[in-house]
Amino acid sequence: MADVAWIAVDWGTSHLRAWLMDRSGAVIERRQSDAGMGTLDRDGFEPALRALVGDALPAPVLACGMVGSRQGWAEAPYATAPCPPPGAAQAVQVPGLDVRILPGVKQPRPADVMRGEETQIAGYLATHPGFDGVICLPGTHTKWVHISAGEIVSFRTAMTGEMFSLLSTQSVLRHSMGTGWDAASFDAGVDQAISKPEALAASLFSLRAEGLLAGLNPDAARARLSGLLIGAELAAMRPYWLGQQVALIGAESLSRAYADALAVQSVPCHSAGVEDMTLAGLTAAWTQIYGEAA
Amino acid sequence: MADVAWIAVDWGTSHLRAWLMDRSGAVIERRQSDAGMGTLDRDGFEPALRALVGDALPAPVLACGMVGSRQGWAEAPYATAPCPPPGAAQAVQVPGLDVRILPGVKQPRPADVMRGEETQIAGYLATHPGFDGVICLPGTHTKWVHISAGEIVSFRTAMTGEMFSLLSTQSVLRHSMGTGWDAASFDAGVDQAISKPEALAASLFSLRAEGLLAGLNPDAARARLSGLLIGAELAAMRPYWLGQQVALIGAESLSRAYADALAVQSVPCHSAGVEDMTLAGLTAAWTQIYGEAA
Repeated sequence: MADVAWIAVDWGTSHLRAWLMDRSGAVIERRQSDAGMGTLDRDGFEPALRALVGDALPAPVLACGMVGSRQGWAEAPYATAPCPPPGAAQAVQVPGLDVRILPGVKQPRPADVMRGEETQIAGYLATHPGFDGVICLPGTHTKWVHISAGEIVSFRTAMTGEMFSLLSTQSVLRHSMGTGWDAASFDAGVDQAISKPEALAASLFSLRAEGLLAGLNPDAARARLSGLLIGAELAAMRPYWLGQQVALIGAESLSRAYADALAVQSVPCHSAGVEDMTLAGLTAAWTQIYGEAA
Repeated sequence: MADVAWIAVDWGTSHLRAWLMDRSGAVIERRQSDAGMGTLDRDGFEPALRALVGDALPAPVLACGMVGSRQGWAEAPYATAPCPPPGAAQAVQVPGLDVRILPGVKQPRPADVMRGEETQIAGYLATHPGFDGVICLPGTHTKWVHISAGEIVSFRTAMTGEMFSLLSTQSVLRHSMGTGWDAASFDAGVDQAISKPEALAASLFSLRAEGLLAGLNPDAARARLSGLLIGAELAAMRPYWLGQQVALIGAESLSRAYADALAVQSVPCHSAGVEDMTLAGLTAAWTQIYGEAA
């Protein structure tokens, strides 16, 4: 594969994605595997990368995500907010290989960290020059990020996605949960949590009790649980979104749920795709090393 | 074992406890196994009971707990609050056996249910005649119960214990958790959650981030997580405890944590043991069937 100029890699806890790139900045091929960082010890990274893109090596590699954590392939120490999203100059090289890893961002107070999202943010800023405002990245650990003058000013993390997963599949609520969706129940959950966030702890078990006593529809129960948790998150993150425009970078259905919840609060949203922004962020950093594509 | 007059049984999701009782109401012997309802199908209950107390049968058995649920041995339909704790007259007999099961209590709006706690409440009322006020039963699913004139007037459930278990052992926070305790961190968590309950969703991930960035002590992290969740529960249950005396029925260390948290809110607490109250409740119901002990 002589025409591969470089390889963009998004390497998270549970996934490994690679894009073979040509000199013009176009994607030749996209590949992925489930060799996420969480499944690998330190000696496992190079074989996992070779298994996915060995035929395109020794093209240089630029990666982002948990691969740069202390438990990853090579630690890329956090940049400290306020700061621009880290670029190529802060990338760490894996010893002996033409593989560079972009660092994450930390915030000392209140303590918070991100790894991978900073590259999506860089991609958003590269594709939306001059953007000032709030970026929300919904996911397992949703990030809310205040952007000004090209810098990550401050950010907070809510564990909403992980809470939803644990409560809907591991807790007593799993007995009352379907796999579908009910938009009105989602909206009702958001409204309930955002108007009375202090009552959340008493409202979760009701999903089980209504299932037992009133035959609550399992899809409605699942959507209301999601609404309650996202509503509680919005209550906590009010300083971020109040009176703002919000750019959402997340999976399509999850971003839509956040956009619906924010619309009720009269917050206009714009959505961008995770993979598009990741690739744009990696490309922006790549360009910092090797100059503009021909 | 000719002197066994009856057998008191507490049969929950994860435990089976039995007390062999004599005619005077004294405990001859206490036994337990891990044959909780959650491990049994319907044909498994009789063998599990025989395995534990077969040598004392055919003494009559009076049981409470999840054994009376729809997925249990024989369904004992819920009594409906407001009501006194269900007694012997509402017990359901297992067909063909001298085994009776006490029902739980349901509340239509807001929807809620209990099975097992109603018997602890009966025991508390039997041992504290004339009690009016609030009973809190800390556990996997903590119940807050308003008692007046011998009746369960209303109640709510918080899934705090289950949330703590899931977050501390299954979520990303597990990497930052010790197994010990730190009282000051617990108090700080309670204070933080009760004073700003709407901020809870943003405060959980900080435990992980402070572990990564500031070397937060793992025991302190665990205690603060507990404090945040119990504080959030107290915020939700304020209508129950505000200006009240609270009777706590729970495991000793957990009840002490609740008592500490409530003390900061100037709420005086009295504690009673789960097993003592369960046995007192079963004994009270037994006495309704067979009259006062000789």
